[in-house]
Amino acid sequence: MDNEILWALHARKSVRVFTDEPVTAEERAAILEAAFQAPTAGNQQLYTILDITDPAQKERLADLCDHQPFIAKSKLCLVFLADCRRWPRAYRAAGVEAPRKAGPGDLLLAVADACIAAQNAVTAAESLGIGSCYIGDVLENAEAMRETLALPPQVVPACMLVFGRPTEQQKTRQKPVRFREEAVVCENTYRDRTEEELREDFNLRGAGVPEFQFDRYLQAFCKRKYDSDFSREMSRSAAVYLQDFCE
Amino acid sequence: MDNEILWALHARKSVRVFTDEPVTAEERAAILEAAFQAPTAGNQQLYTILDITDPAQKERLADLCDHQPFIAKSKLCLVFLADCRRWPRAYRAAGVEAPRKAGPGDLLLAVADACIAAQNAVTAAESLGIGSCYIGDVLENAEAMRETLALPPQVVPACMLVFGRPTEQQKTRQKPVRFREEAVVCENTYRDRTEEELREDFNLRGAGVPEFQFDRYLQAFCKRKYDSDFSREMSRSAAVYLQDFCE
Repeated sequence: MDNEILWALHARKSVRVFTDEPVTAEERAAILEAAFQAPTAGNQQLYTILDITDPAQKERLADLCDHQPFIAKSKLCLVFLADCRRWPRAYRAAGVEAPRKAGPGDLLLAVADACIAAQNAVTAAESLGIGSCYIGDVLENAEAMRETLALPPQVVPACMLVFGRPTEQQKTRQKPVRFREEAVVCENTYRDRTEEELREDFNLRGAGVPEFQFDRYLQAFCKRKYDSDFSREMSRSAAVYLQDFCE
Repeated sequence: MDNEILWALHARKSVRVFTDEPVTAEERAAILEAAFQAPTAGNQQLYTILDITDPAQKERLADLCDHQPFIAKSKLCLVFLADCRRWPRAYRAAGVEAPRKAGPGDLLLAVADACIAAQNAVTAAESLGIGSCYIGDVLENAEAMRETLALPPQVVPACMLVFGRPTEQQKTRQKPVRFREEAVVCENTYRDRTEEELREDFNLRGAGVPEFQFDRYLQAFCKRKYDSDFSREMSRSAAVYLQDFCE
């Protein structure tokens, strides 16, 4: 199977260093329009997209998202907010007396909606030669993030995307290898990979990495990512957002 | 701005009635591969995809997902699970003594990862003439869903996708109009739409709908969707899944 679209989805990789070339107004509009046209539960578009145009605001986000300076250098920066607020406000405006408070199901559905829209934005940008990178760290620092982005209750950052044209070095950078199908697909029901299978899954994925060694790689990754301060902060912060939905 | 990819993203609409033509093994492989190649936090692929091949299992899912028989008639049915289990198990296999328990931040990051991968699957399928529909209802009925899909702790359905070729009627069906940009995009900080703006946002979106009327439409939509049994069930069920991550 091969066609231009499959090829593009396969070739796309994250870009973290951008050339000076701007994203034009027309390109921005095409990227946003692709996001709007994404599948959305009941045609509700359960998100609000913040277009971060103020350089000082970008700097603050770069800082709040685990101190990643390249965020501030992006040519287009979009925060995808799961928005459980717009529709209940519209219900009230339409005379519905007391619409129920959004719960965790509404939040998860809105997070899905926001990320599905975001991935269309990524694919659209790629088709225009514009690279992108997801910033999952936008979930951290709930209190400061709420203040910076003026987030009201029932609105939660789902993901952030930064865009810009890739430098030559970024273009030639190798895309990291993914797991083989057996590692991430099960038939009909969930089954844990055995320890042996896990070792093989990771070894196959790491086959191109010089001196890849399962134990050493996973110990280091755990320390650097899963057990890091930013990862613990992400769960603390997410719990702050969730409180809103769990009474 | 126009190119084949932007056009495809714009044209894609949900398909709920499928022809008898199967999804071939090669097409299935291309759809899955596009999902794997999607952006993923730290190259972790924080999801497991269940490929539902057993007709009885499809029937059960059709029933558990708010009784939607067309699910059972799909030619390919994929459940995207947010999987906060694979990596901690690999850490343990690699000798990390007691990796922390995944928290709500890990869950939201994994839900994002799963939905981003799912949207690549949608776009890939579309490029092969295969339609798709998201089933958000997969979040409902946590207890029965866990039993049906053999879900262990720390594994949560993020979304489900059904695939098949569209019938003629589905091909000619009009795609629902989305909100205008101002309705869903803010600059730098969040701002609530005023009641007047909300009315205009919805009126513009509904302009093509015969006799669209803001109050009546939103009152009916609230009753049928937001205040429905399945919507309340979704939040109850999501809370069951969340408990796992919130101790």
